[in-house]
Amino acid sequence: MSSERLIYLPLGGAGEIGMNAYVYGYGKPDNERYILVDLGVTFPDMDSTPGVDLILPDITWLKERAERIEAIFITHAHEDHIGAVAHFYNDLNAPVYARVFTANIASRKMSEHGYPAEAVRTVNAWPEKTKAGPFTVGFLPISHSIPESAGLVIDSPSGRVIHTGDFKLDPTPLVGEAFDPELWAAVSKDGVKALVCDSTNVFAPNPGRSELDVGPAITELVSAAPGMVVATTFASNVARVKTLAEAGQRAGRSIVLLGRAMRRMVEASIETGVLTDFPTVISAEAARDVPRENLMLLVTGSQGERRAASAQLARGKYQGLTMKEGDMFLFSSKTIPGNERGVIRIINAFSEMGVDVVDDSSGLYHVSGHANRPDLERMHEIVKPQMLIPMHGEHRHLREHAKLGDAKGLQSVVVVNGMMMDLSGNAPKVVDYIETGRTYLDGSIKIGALDGVVRDRIRLALNGHVVVTVILDEQDEPLGEPWCEIRGISDTGSSRAPLVEVLEEDLGQFLNRANAKTLKDDGKLEESLRRIARQSAQKEIGKKPEVTVVISRMR
Amino acid sequence: MSSERLIYLPLGGAGEIGMNAYVYGYGKPDNERYILVDLGVTFPDMDSTPGVDLILPDITWLKERAERIEAIFITHAHEDHIGAVAHFYNDLNAPVYARVFTANIASRKMSEHGYPAEAVRTVNAWPEKTKAGPFTVGFLPISHSIPESAGLVIDSPSGRVIHTGDFKLDPTPLVGEAFDPELWAAVSKDGVKALVCDSTNVFAPNPGRSELDVGPAITELVSAAPGMVVATTFASNVARVKTLAEAGQRAGRSIVLLGRAMRRMVEASIETGVLTDFPTVISAEAARDVPRENLMLLVTGSQGERRAASAQLARGKYQGLTMKEGDMFLFSSKTIPGNERGVIRIINAFSEMGVDVVDDSSGLYHVSGHANRPDLERMHEIVKPQMLIPMHGEHRHLREHAKLGDAKGLQSVVVVNGMMMDLSGNAPKVVDYIETGRTYLDGSIKIGALDGVVRDRIRLALNGHVVVTVILDEQDEPLGEPWCEIRGISDTGSSRAPLVEVLEEDLGQFLNRANAKTLKDDGKLEESLRRIARQSAQKEIGKKPEVTVVISRMR
Repeated sequence: MSSERLIYLPLGGAGEIGMNAYVYGYGKPDNERYILVDLGVTFPDMDSTPGVDLILPDITWLKERAERIEAIFITHAHEDHIGAVAHFYNDLNAPVYARVFTANIASRKMSEHGYPAEAVRTVNAWPEKTKAGPFTVGFLPISHSIPESAGLVIDSPSGRVIHTGDFKLDPTPLVGEAFDPELWAAVSKDGVKALVCDSTNVFAPNPGRSELDVGPAITELVSAAPGMVVATTFASNVARVKTLAEAGQRAGRSIVLLGRAMRRMVEASIETGVLTDFPTVISAEAARDVPRENLMLLVTGSQGERRAASAQLARGKYQGLTMKEGDMFLFSSKTIPGNERGVIRIINAFSEMGVDVVDDSSGLYHVSGHANRPDLERMHEIVKPQMLIPMHGEHRHLREHAKLGDAKGLQSVVVVNGMMMDLSGNAPKVVDYIETGRTYLDGSIKIGALDGVVRDRIRLALNGHVVVTVILDEQDEPLGEPWCEIRGISDTGSSRAPLVEVLEEDLGQFLNRANAKTLKDDGKLEESLRRIARQSAQKEIGKKPEVTVVISRMR
Repeated sequence: MSSERLIYLPLGGAGEIGMNAYVYGYGKPDNERYILVDLGVTFPDMDSTPGVDLILPDITWLKERAERIEAIFITHAHEDHIGAVAHFYNDLNAPVYARVFTANIASRKMSEHGYPAEAVRTVNAWPEKTKAGPFTVGFLPISHSIPESAGLVIDSPSGRVIHTGDFKLDPTPLVGEAFDPELWAAVSKDGVKALVCDSTNVFAPNPGRSELDVGPAITELVSAAPGMVVATTFASNVARVKTLAEAGQRAGRSIVLLGRAMRRMVEASIETGVLTDFPTVISAEAARDVPRENLMLLVTGSQGERRAASAQLARGKYQGLTMKEGDMFLFSSKTIPGNERGVIRIINAFSEMGVDVVDDSSGLYHVSGHANRPDLERMHEIVKPQMLIPMHGEHRHLREHAKLGDAKGLQSVVVVNGMMMDLSGNAPKVVDYIETGRTYLDGSIKIGALDGVVRDRIRLALNGHVVVTVILDEQDEPLGEPWCEIRGISDTGSSRAPLVEVLEEDLGQFLNRANAKTLKDDGKLEESLRRIARQSAQKEIGKKPEVTVVISRMR
């Protein structure tokens, strides 16, 4: 009988940025008790996931073992760590543990889905610990771009694992706890088996800067602005929102929070005591009576999201407020790769209005929430783990992070989604490969990424759609002519005749020639009609559309 | 009778980067004789133009005046300046003038479309001039990231206009002519009415660097690489291709050119004498027998294009060649905003193979082909125009460039696509707004951007498609049940029953209840069936699909 083991299995977040979900297990092989660290989402795009509302990790493997899940621990309240908690609550049915601010956000999500608030249990930071089967877990405060981020100290009979969550080493984060190197060293001093460590900024060569650093530049900028100032950042970056609001206040401006997330995050911060002082805000209605040079709007939509406040202002107005020549729009944020087009669209729209747009190209108005390369090295040195497991990164980040560890003599291993690692021994060992992937929330339904539904939509978008309808009588003879409808295809092709007429002509000729055997056989008939419709379109418009054939028989 | 005037009218490229097409006219109002400067394309994306093959400017206005077009002048052979020449050759039927390298590329395009090579006329650089109606046009050499770029000196009875084309101020461009400030000053010294000037890099604060600067760093990198080296850049950046090849040669590596554009550009450069010495290249077949540490591949696909050599290598192999652990892939290029996802996909695929990817984040392995902010100021100072008209840029670039001119006391004006400017007087004056836009090449057909075809495809991609078929007998009574087919939609919804069955049930119930008036009226019936299908789907899967209704009547 084999002995007990400590396993690590990422189901999301290892090989991608976003959709974090990390399983730890302890026990006899295939009979471990599990905890899950984070349960996040990632966001769809038109390229690969048109029409999808949200992307969740595929947790099939975990669902099949739901009775062995002891608890879910959430490191912080960013969507890519917390966003799927309510979507999978019914499937996993495990208690969710988080610190007060994170728990507040999680509870809001639970209630939106009709689950009881008690589903989420609020815990205090280290040295408080939570027992979860064979594990004992403590929340070790660390700085990030959201209040109350925590690394997890995960103790098991095989030793201590430190799972950093997302982090930076900020001595002055303004909101939430500063990074406390002594505390992290103390927790690590008796030996850490594995450091499972954020990799996002491994390619950033210089030490990270503090949240404190952006205040003076923002204050100067806002004070010098002649018109209305509108600033955007991630709403969850409460420290930044505060810095922006205070800069406005100092410049004698009334502050308006626009966008649901912006108001909700400030609200949650005040409710939970994370934010003790915040400038008075006025409503959008009240703002309409304030001279624009005395206004500062803090808005959602730093990534150019089409429905957010910033994009709506760029298209015209939001809650009765509009931008004008001489106003300023500040991106106190970085554009996440892939979101450039949306952001640039907004900037150009503002440019057309005569609004001056300030972004972070100067490096003055934004700092990252993730540890840069030298900060990662510092973390490695503080924790001195037996093994380093890079997480939260695309493959290139994980690989680079492992190389960084290797270079300093740390035993480092690239582990991607689905690789089950046994951490019990002196060296990490792959013990299984689990099928992982993505689940799409599509309207109100969850569909698998490989179900083919989204692939079909992409094909429709690339090729357009022809619907061919044929009716056959009781003798399997065509009744009338075939009928075509087109969607997303040019009405006319090279012959200048309506495309549907060309298609119907070619399909009709085929039906006239077709023998009884073909006409009797739905499969054969459909196949032939599809082929002819595609060939006919290719000749006429130079591309082959998707074709749906509907055969109706009168028998 | 009003007097003659000089007009400037961008049909593309002013308010966007790409798809350049600038009209100059001289004559009585609405009776001017025209020349067209550049006729380029831009590239589709999944977000806004799924399935489209190429985006061309909408030249309807110009086509309607085709008999008054004297000539088309192409500044250089980048696709966004030359790409639409053959597509519109039949519509405009005007001679195309270009310098030898550009003309070579244009002729290839003409022959691909079955037009005679004589459609393109090769001219020499300044001081040679071409007469075109009221205009005399000379090609003034200037450095850029392709051989033989030229600014145009456009003389009209209203004075001289200098149209820069794309440019940088490179004293050592390696291939093609260096920027010659004395020549530009000499051409400008008798007074320039308008400088129509590239705006691409107006936000880049530091002076541009020379093509010469990247050579040593690339050579060092390639020499130190232990395995095979694969490098990508724009194929048209012949100087860079040469630098890369020479770096490989110095490191004792055999050079292989992969990708059609890469081979074609080097071929055209040698044919036209632009490139006099280039390292010997070997074929992909021959390369298979060379040890990988002695190989350097120069490949297409610096922007992550799915079908290019780089993406194919990332997916597995290209012409029998594969990448392996220990090889290096160099992006000697910048990622154009919007292409990040494709590029990152490739980088991660290489990371999984153990290939080391080097990009330009260090600034060592790439220099831009466009004039930075201080270079633009220098150009303004050399030409000292009466007015500055920024071109080739999104609105934000044009506006910033105009502000830059204004700040130095230059009369500057933002002119976007469709604004017809009269440049005859002392100040530029808007005299008309012309409808402009985009034409999509879709398969073999040109469709208008506002035709709705692509909009329909986007809707299909976002919402999926339901096809409803109903047959009515001679008495307008339903014959059998309604029939549904779905594409790009989940098979089952919240009730767990097949979605088509739920839809058919709801539609059938409606038909049973429907009165004779509705059943007789195709429009009404279709509208009702669509509404019910959408409601039914909304209830079942939480989204409303696109619906096509096919009604067949037996009468």
